[in-house]
Amino acid sequence: MTFDSLRFDADGLIPGLVQSRTGELRMMAWLNREALRLTLDTGFVTFWSRSRQALWVKGESSGNRLKLVQIRPDCDADALLIVADPEGPSCHRGTESCFDGEPWPATLPWLGRLEALLKSRKASADLNGSYTQKLFAQGVDRIAKKVVEEAGEVILAAKNDDREAFLGEAADLLFHLDLLLLERGASLLEVVEVLHHRHADRSGGPA
Amino acid sequence: MTFDSLRFDADGLIPGLVQSRTGELRMMAWLNREALRLTLDTGFVTFWSRSRQALWVKGESSGNRLKLVQIRPDCDADALLIVADPEGPSCHRGTESCFDGEPWPATLPWLGRLEALLKSRKASADLNGSYTQKLFAQGVDRIAKKVVEEAGEVILAAKNDDREAFLGEAADLLFHLDLLLLERGASLLEVVEVLHHRHADRSGGPA
Repeated sequence: MTFDSLRFDADGLIPGLVQSRTGELRMMAWLNREALRLTLDTGFVTFWSRSRQALWVKGESSGNRLKLVQIRPDCDADALLIVADPEGPSCHRGTESCFDGEPWPATLPWLGRLEALLKSRKASADLNGSYTQKLFAQGVDRIAKKVVEEAGEVILAAKNDDREAFLGEAADLLFHLDLLLLERGASLLEVVEVLHHRHADRSGGPA
Repeated sequence: MTFDSLRFDADGLIPGLVQSRTGELRMMAWLNREALRLTLDTGFVTFWSRSRQALWVKGESSGNRLKLVQIRPDCDADALLIVADPEGPSCHRGTESCFDGEPWPATLPWLGRLEALLKSRKASADLNGSYTQKLFAQGVDRIAKKVVEEAGEVILAAKNDDREAFLGEAADLLFHLDLLLLERGASLLEVVEVLHHRHADRSGGPA
């Protein structure tokens, strides 16, 4: 990123759109040159508070900081996409995102939300609980068997001309793969990191 | 969304952050009340161009419109997350996103980018081509066999104490599942739609 080419507005500010690596838009706030410099230097997202007219290290008091992953300016360099790993909820209301409140549509970021729920089911594993709690209570072998079973059902459905059944089985496979990942203390994003490592070209695009 | 509670700025504008359903931040632009009304009425995202001081139906001339999925205001109602299905590249440079240009980190949205690449490999399927082109040329049975094979390898790796191998096999499984989806003319997002249908509670959160 060429710092000098950025276009700050008449007040010396540029909007920062914070997105987690699951693709959740977490919040929008403003940066001045000093906030940007501090963000880059410290590795934690820092804004300029327009109401308080002061620098604002996001999460400094709540502990819910935003660990910087990457900053990407837009085409005319007057907005910044800030990719960050949140250390807790990002909204002052205690919600993960400042954009929470409306029901979510089906999106890839929603998959990250689902995984967070499944993780909580693991923490409350229970042989008498929900389907997912029961699977976690039964342990790795039970979940592993489901992964192979669902893989078999996916390929059978792929051979039959039933798109709905095929998508349903693919959903079952993805769901149980995520359970297995969580059972082993891993996450979908770590799997994406492996694919990224394999397929990202020098410009970061897939190859 | 309660239209009346939105906080437009002194110029009567509110920022609109457009995100695709893969979680890509596509662009940021501004809406006034009329642009918002038109967006909701027509189902296609409409902005207020500050430079031209005119309403601007995104993609009206290029054809690359943004089909509205959902609008979610943030906690203090002075910014809008606009989830949309893009009908083509969103940036005037011809790139998918106005934030393209920097290499991408590993994120769930990146998975959508990878899928787009794999889709292009399907269009150029070739028995003498790359690994992926070859698989597409060999057809559904070959890809299906890989899905089951990789599922077996995932569960073996889950049983061994090798985290790196386990993540590698999970990546193989997800990769080949996506190839099978594409082979059948489907996509990862359609699978997420199935999971969303099953697991979204009334507030849109997973349950």
